[in-house]
Parts: sequence; C-alpha cells; structure tokens
Amino acid sequence: MTKLFNDPARFTEDMLVGFLDANARYVTGVPGGVVRAHRTRPGKVAVVIGGGSGHYPAFCGTVGPGFADGAVVGNIFTSPSAEEAASVARAAHNDAGVLLTTGNYAGDVMNFGLAVTQLRSEGIDAHYFAVTDDIASAPRGEEAKRRGIAGDFTVFKCASAAAEEGQDLAGVIRVAEAANAASRTLGVAFDGCTLPGADHPLFTVPEGHMGLGLGIHGEPGVADEAMPTAAGLAATLVDGVLGDRPDAPEKRIAVILNGLGRTKYEELFVVWGEVSRLLRERGYTVVDPEVGELVTSLDMAGCSLTVMWLDEELERYWTAPADTPAYKKGAAAQPQSGQLRSDQDTETVSAAPPLNELSDDDGRKGARLVARALDSMAAALADAEEELGRIDAIAGDGDHGRGMVKGSSAAREAAAAAVADGGGQGSVLAAAGKAWAAKAGGTSGVLWGALLTALGTRLGDTGRPSAADVAAGMRDGYDALIRLGGAAPGDKTMLDALLPFVEELERRVADGESWQDSWRAAAETATEAARATAELRPKVGRARPLAERSVGTPDAGATSLALCARTVGDCLTLTTQGDN
Amino acid sequence: MTKLFNDPARFTEDMLVGFLDANARYVTGVPGGVVRAHRTRPGKVAVVIGGGSGHYPAFCGTVGPGFADGAVVGNIFTSPSAEEAASVARAAHNDAGVLLTTGNYAGDVMNFGLAVTQLRSEGIDAHYFAVTDDIASAPRGEEAKRRGIAGDFTVFKCASAAAEEGQDLAGVIRVAEAANAASRTLGVAFDGCTLPGADHPLFTVPEGHMGLGLGIHGEPGVADEAMPTAAGLAATLVDGVLGDRPDAPEKRIAVILNGLGRTKYEELFVVWGEVSRLLRERGYTVVDPEVGELVTSLDMAGCSLTVMWLDEELERYWTAPADTPAYKKGAAAQPQSGQLRSDQDTETVSAAPPLNELSDDDGRKGARLVARALDSMAAALADAEEELGRIDAIAGDGDHGRGMVKGSSAAREAAAAAVADGGGQGSVLAAAGKAWAAKAGGTSGVLWGALLTALGTRLGDTGRPSAADVAAGMRDGYDALIRLGGAAPGDKTMLDALLPFVEELERRVADGESWQDSWRAAAETATEAARATAELRPKVGRARPLAERSVGTPDAGATSLALCARTVGDCLTLTTQGDN
Repeated sequence: MTKLFNDPARFTEDMLVGFLDANARYVTGVPGGVVRAHRTRPGKVAVVIGGGSGHYPAFCGTVGPGFADGAVVGNIFTSPSAEEAASVARAAHNDAGVLLTTGNYAGDVMNFGLAVTQLRSEGIDAHYFAVTDDIASAPRGEEAKRRGIAGDFTVFKCASAAAEEGQDLAGVIRVAEAANAASRTLGVAFDGCTLPGADHPLFTVPEGHMGLGLGIHGEPGVADEAMPTAAGLAATLVDGVLGDRPDAPEKRIAVILNGLGRTKYEELFVVWGEVSRLLRERGYTVVDPEVGELVTSLDMAGCSLTVMWLDEELERYWTAPADTPAYKKGAAAQPQSGQLRSDQDTETVSAAPPLNELSDDDGRKGARLVARALDSMAAALADAEEELGRIDAIAGDGDHGRGMVKGSSAAREAAAAAVADGGGQGSVLAAAGKAWAAKAGGTSGVLWGALLTALGTRLGDTGRPSAADVAAGMRDGYDALIRLGGAAPGDKTMLDALLPFVEELERRVADGESWQDSWRAAAETATEAARATAELRPKVGRARPLAERSVGTPDAGATSLALCARTVGDCLTLTTQGDN
Repeated sequence: MTKLFNDPARFTEDMLVGFLDANARYVTGVPGGVVRAHRTRPGKVAVVIGGGSGHYPAFCGTVGPGFADGAVVGNIFTSPSAEEAASVARAAHNDAGVLLTTGNYAGDVMNFGLAVTQLRSEGIDAHYFAVTDDIASAPRGEEAKRRGIAGDFTVFKCASAAAEEGQDLAGVIRVAEAANAASRTLGVAFDGCTLPGADHPLFTVPEGHMGLGLGIHGEPGVADEAMPTAAGLAATLVDGVLGDRPDAPEKRIAVILNGLGRTKYEELFVVWGEVSRLLRERGYTVVDPEVGELVTSLDMAGCSLTVMWLDEELERYWTAPADTPAYKKGAAAQPQSGQLRSDQDTETVSAAPPLNELSDDDGRKGARLVARALDSMAAALADAEEELGRIDAIAGDGDHGRGMVKGSSAAREAAAAAVADGGGQGSVLAAAGKAWAAKAGGTSGVLWGALLTALGTRLGDTGRPSAADVAAGMRDGYDALIRLGGAAPGDKTMLDALLPFVEELERRVADGESWQDSWRAAAETATEAARATAELRPKVGRARPLAERSVGTPDAGATSLALCARTVGDCLTLTTQGDN
C-alpha cells in the first residue's frame, strides 16, 4: 500500500515538487503540470500527454526530447481539469499547434476536450486524441469505447517522435491514430493498490486467482481465473492480444510487457522469456521490446502485454531516440541543446476575474449564504470521502470521494475570498464553480463547476432571487450537464439524482412553497433517487461485466449530489432561523 | 509477493532467459551470468559485479558501456559460486585485468575471493573489492564489517567509469575504494518480500511501524519505529546518513533515493522533495540525483538514502555517461561501436574432469553408497527447505533452504553421472562437491563443496575405506572449513554441529565400533548440538540487534548439517541390511 505521504490531500502537489527537483535538467513546472525545461525549435508541433497521476513514469516521466512536450498532472487516478490541461498546452505550445492526448476515460475526454475548445478560442491550433488499446474493456467492433492503458505508451511515443521529426499537426494526428489502431493490450492483476491515506486497497483479488482485464485504476477485470504459471500467463496474454487483431499483415511488432507496480522485474523477465518464444513461434519479429514499469498503478500487483503492429513508419517512430527523466533510448538530442525557459516566460494561469462590485446588499447577503452552504458541503463531503470512494470502487476507480473533497474545498475557499472582495451571489457561485472544476479534476469536477456556474449566471449579483429564480437556476444547471456529459437519466450518473431534485423543486415552487422548504423536500426526493440507482446499470464506455458488477450499489455521483442537497437544506434551516 | 514463476527452483535461470532475450543489444549470456554483447577496446580493465539476484536492475541490468563489463548472477538472495564468478570474469576479461566487486556478504566474499585465486592461477590479473555502505549494520569504527546495499550502485558506477576512462587496474581499485569510503546508506522497510514459491514473506513489519536499517535481503532492522510522515522519514534518513560522516569537507554530493520494490515512484518523489530541501538547508549541492529503483529486494516495501561525498574525480565518474539495459545517462557510446562477440569465442566452463577409471570393485561399491546417500540427502533437504528458510530468515536472508536444495540436487546428479562413468568413491565425492559449490552458491555452497571434496580426497577411488579413514576424512572436511570460513566453533554456524559430530565419530571409531554405528551415534550428537545453537549469538559481521534477535533460534547451517548426518545414517542402516 501507499505508505509515504504528508497530507494525503496534497500528495500530488508534494510528488510534483520532488519530481521537478530531481529532474530539473529535463522539466519545468507550470500550473497544471510540467513542460520541457528547454524550448523546442520553431515549427515543431507540441505533444501534451496526461491524465491522473499514480501511473509513473506515465505521464510526466516521459517529457523530454523525442517524447512529450508537456504532461498534465491530475490527482491520483483523477483527470486533470480543463483549465490545467489548457495551461500546460499553452506553455508547451510553440508555434505549430498542439496535440493533447490521454487514455480514453470520460473525465479526460471531457476536460481535455474543453481545453481544446478554450485553446482554439485563443488562436492555438489544438486537437485531442484518446487512446483505446485495452481489449478487455469493450468487444471488437466497439474499439472506440475501449480504455487506454499501457498502449498509451506506444501511441504517445510514436506521435511524439513524429512531431520531433517535423510532421505538421495533421501528420502527428495521423500517426497517433495509426499507432492506436495498431496497438492492443491485455492486462491482469493479482492484488489491488491503495490510495495515499486509505487503509485498505481499492479492490482485492481472491488468493490464488488473477483478475483478467483489470483496468489501471483498479477497475474490476472481466473474469476471475485461477493463478497460472508464468508460462500459462504468457500464453493467455499472447493469445488474447493476437486474437484481437488476427488478420494483421505486419509481422514486425513492438511489444511491451508492463509491470503495474508490485510485480517486479525478475518476474517480468520470467514471463517475457515465454512471451518472446510464443511470438517467435508464430512468425513475429519483436522490435525493441520493453520489459519493465512504464504505466503503473501505484502498488498494484499485475502486468499487461501490449503489441503494436509495425509498418515502416511506425517502426521508425518506435525506434527513434528519446531522452526523458524515466525513459531514454539511443542517442537523443541532449536536453541542453535548446534555449532554457526563463521563469518569466512560462505562462501562469490568471486568477479569477475581478468580481462585480456593484452588487447590492441583498446580493451580498445571498453571497454569504452561498459561502456558508459551500462550507457545510465541504465539511459533509470530507466526512463522506471514504464511503464515496468505496462505492465508486465497485465499478469505477475509487476517486470520487477524493475529487469531491478537493473540489468542494477549493470552492469554499474561492467563495470566501469572493465574499471578502464584496462579490454578489452570482460572482461567488461563478468563482466557486471555476475553482471546483480547476481543482477537483475528473468528470465530477467539470460537472459541478458547470452546475454552480449556471446557477450563478441565473441568480446574478444584485437583488434577492425569487423562488422561481432558484428553481430555474437549478434547471439551467441540469441542462448544462446534459450538454457536457453525453449521459442521460437512467445511465447511473449524478443526473439520476439531479433530475428528480430539479423536478420536485420546480413542482413545489410552482405550488407556492418557499424555495427553502421546496429545496429540503427536493433533497429528500434526490436521496431516494440516489438510493434507487443501485438497480441501474452504467451505460457508457464500460464493459458489460463492470456494468453487472455495479448492480446493487448506488452511483457515487448521485449519492454525493443527494448528500450535498441535504446539507444545503440543513444549512437553509439554520440560516432561516438566524441572520438571513 | 512474488507470484509469477514456472518451477521456483529454476526461477533465476528462467529470469536470465527473458532478460537476455529482451536485452540482446546489450548483453550476452555466459555460464554464471552475463557480459557485454560487444568487445571492449584493448587495454580496458574489466569490472565484474554481482551477487544474488532479486535486486534488479542490480546487477545484470547495469552491464554495458560506461558501467560494468559483466555481472555474475546468483540465485535469489544467494551468492553465486566461485566457479560462476570466475567464469563471468574470464569472459569479461580483455587484457588489462579484472576487478570483481560485490556488496560485503560472507558468501560473496568467500566465493569471489576463491574466484580471484583461480583467475590468478590462470594468469589473469584479478582483484576483489567488497562495498560497505550500510551504516546500520555496524557502528562507526567498524566500517569494514558493514553490508553493501544501495551504495553498491555508487561504487560500481564510479569504478566502471574509471575503467572506461582508461585507468589501469590499480587505478580502478583506488577509485572503488575512494567511492566506498565516501558512500553511506540508511534504509527502512515497511513490509517484507516473498521468495518465489514461498507462501509467506521472509519477515513482516508490524502495521503502522517501520524497520530502521533493514537489509536488502530482509535481514531484520536495528530498530522498530512508528511509521512517520514522508517529511519525518526524510529527516530520519538525512540525519542518519549525514551523521555518520559529520566531518566530510565536500559540499557536493551524489544522492540516491532508492525504492526497494513496492514503494513506488510517486511516494519516492514526495520523500525526495523533503530530502532535497534538508540537504540544501545544510549547504549541500546535490549532483545528478537518482530517485527510483536501482537496488531492489523483490517486492519489499521500503526505501533507502545513499549519499556519496564528491571530490573532483568522483564527480567526474558519477556524472559520466552510461548505456545499459536499465540505466542510461548522457551520450554514452553506442553498444554497436565494439565488435560483436561471436558465439564461439565466449568462454564455456569445462565439465567435470575425466574420472579415474582405475577404481576397483570396492571403490565402485563405495561410489554407489555415496550416490545413494546424496540422493537421500537431497530428498530430505527438499522436504526441509521451507523450515530451513524460515529459521535462516530470523537473523539472515532466508536463502539457506533454497541453497541447500540447489546444492544437494546438483551433487546428486553429478554423483549419479560419475557412478555411471565408472568412478570410485573419491571421484564421485569430488564431482558432487564441485557441483554443490557451483550450483548452490552462497557460503554454504562453498563449505559443503569443500567438505565433500576433502572427504573424497582422503577416501580415494580404490579399496574399501576403513572406519579410521572415514573419521579422518570428516576431520579433513572440518579443517578445510576452518581454513575457508573465518568462523570458529561458538560463532553459531554449521561448525557448531560439525565439530561435535567429528569428535563423536572419532571417539567411537577409536573404541572399535563400526564406522556405520559410529556415524549414527555422531549424527545424534550433531542433532543435539544443532539444537543447542539456539543459545548462541552470531559473532561475525552482524550488527548487535541481529545477534540478539537470533537468540532462541538454532542456526540454519547447523540444523541442515545435522539433518544430513541423520539422513546418511538412516541410509547406512538400509544399506547395511541390503546389498553393500
């Protein structure tokens, strides 16, 4: 288990301090992640990789000549925010456009997609690509739904080498697509990993068994099998990976046997001996194999086999030199060959915009109420963090509790600062929403940020909002989530609690109840609805066994939304009795 | 725990197959280990490193330009045999001498020392050096007794760079000595590692605690402390390491924060941020720090901090380029710059010498008895492997059972082959002894090899030995061990069972008993004596807390010797009743 930390809530920040200190030759920190320490030549496309941390050397360990230009660094197993992705891309961008690329996870797709929109609005030619190499996460024919695991490495490597060679953005995108289309991975796990500060692993595998197809965040596998010998495992992995692309014409292949963290080098070499023999028997030529830890999952026990079928172009990029903190190959350009970035020319993310100072007293009373409600929510979520993580780990990656705590804490601080600056309710909600999205990362961070922002826009900074305004603001928030998320009610997401909440709130307000009473009743409705999500199956981007496994457990996002609604309701009761 | 293997007894061999396959660009296999795939230039001193396996990338992962010329690869946590060390050194040697170097462990010191003697007898200018960086294993003033742990890396790196630069053998030795004198390491462990095929770890650390000063084979630490924060651990490690060399004038230091296997990169970076800050506060400049896994212990949880104080010369060697399977630095010479070794010019170890074919019938009957006795011993040791490993792990590295099984199995096979070739008892014992030493590795391998060889020399190939011959042969074996081992009776070693055995055997033979009856009685005496070693403390090369911890547990070597004596006694009973 993860044993070494100071404050678990600051684990990623502390990790980055140490990483940057030890690798100052290669990398410089920027808000949201890291970029190369030296400027690249004009005309070079920038490649920005990323995702949650906990996968070292993926992703920040492979920033340097021949590989990535920057890495966005989220919290453990949690997507970075859109703002963080845009910040790193801005700093890494030279003058020829930027490819942002991650594994295919809902949070990453959403946040990096939003970052691309933002970057384009600033005049930067940006594009996003998601890697889908994990054959266990969706069947053939549904490749676009697959997760990205160790194939991240083959795709990022080839796209980066294409950029280093001088391909333009369209060319780099084409290479990323080709590398992804040619990459397949199958993984197994023997034991779970433990998040910093947690006292038990995200999941366990029964003694003497292995989980076939386990995800790199501990998402459950598609089958439990008896623990094989090394030779038996080699056969399972080779058969699985080759079987997913049986008609590939190429006989030259790049291969990675990747350790997840606790399955050590000696064991990997024992397995590799068998893998290599089997591949040769089937007529393949293995080009520059990698046997080691390239995409880890904290201290998870397990490994994965990745094959990338090589044409002439992919082989050139796979074998091209690279020189990064954790991955060095051939005679790479030395990092000191470019101009050192000076401190003043790295981008810094601007702070929240100046608040509207014209809010009247009512708007400022509303602002104080918002700050108090967020304060209560942050406290309630901190208490619920472990439970939310536990239920999220049933069919997901267990990061929901941590993400909600990070987001609500940041929102609380931003709201308090905005109130101190004299902001009205709309400004305070906007500042809180922006901070939530920026600090929480993940899917829920984007959605909560959008919800608060939509509500704030409807309420505005001046005047005391009517009950109808509050109901309309929450409906606006729901609509924003539908636009962003690609999910619908019934898909086992927070929407399944939010929609009943909004409908109940609207009904009671229309019946003439106060918005505070309506809110509390709607919170009860949301709580019932969140419980009822236990009967639902997730619909989007999940393999069928994961969907089945989640039946009987409520959705974590719906559960936390209901908790927040109740907490705000309690806060309204106290406030109504008090000074507001 | 170690989960992936085929036959645990062949783990190291299987591991080497995979390692060599994945790294054919860099390394070629030779009997006993690996050497660089390309020949070096004339006049270059060869540096051969090694020790037991289970520490990857140490040691075979750092063979290549700028680093080692060869690595001797023992079984997990077990010294290679003298024959293996000589074999690798012979293959790695060019024309300018060879430095053999390992961490300071009794088995390595003995086997590599014997290899140096052998190599010199062949006209190769060979020298051995043992690294002693572990400050927890012996106090200041007794530095020569200290173990070698992650400081192996700083010393091997600098000595290898000196050889690459063109220093002669005396110069390379001087650099190794200087690097060792300037290197200090302190390690901690949070949980134990598990040997392949074992179902529980070599040791455990109580939940919420850490073992301070734990060895890289799971040797117990010198103190149990409550689990600190990352910052607390950083302070403990920095204070400990700097405190052991408080008057060092150099303010430039090389630093390694080394993960033992299950303590992952993100955690190491969190600790590193604090370590770096503390070192800077004390006025140090850190040169090219390494934060990662360089000297592991299978899947042990823990880490260590190594500091090497740098003068101008050591800094030049520390920062010099290297290009090896697992460690690459700067613009190293490409491996293809030298001539590829052809298969036919790599050395192969000669098989056992032709057996004396002049033995008469009695000598051949004796030979069959020896083979039968070794067969029984091998079976008994296989049954006792786990128990022997368990008691060895109390104050040692838990490898005794595995080593005895490896050695006795090899001896059994060699004896059977020698009998089939018509050898007499002396030749069969000599062949068995040679095989035992070659395959078992470790301290016990050398000693058992010497014991069988001495007995064989006394008995000869012709005629039926007298009871006095058998007793004298065992006394010869005891004397050989005293000459080799540097230990004395009372030091809690196999001598504490062997000496009472020999004395009882001599007494009864002198009284006119048959040697078979005398042997069985002496085996009982040895069994009692082995049990009594529980009250002894080990005397040589162990820190005081380890010595204390072992009180109450018998010595593993004495226990296995008594087991073998009893097994041979039982075999004599059956044989006496049967055809001999």
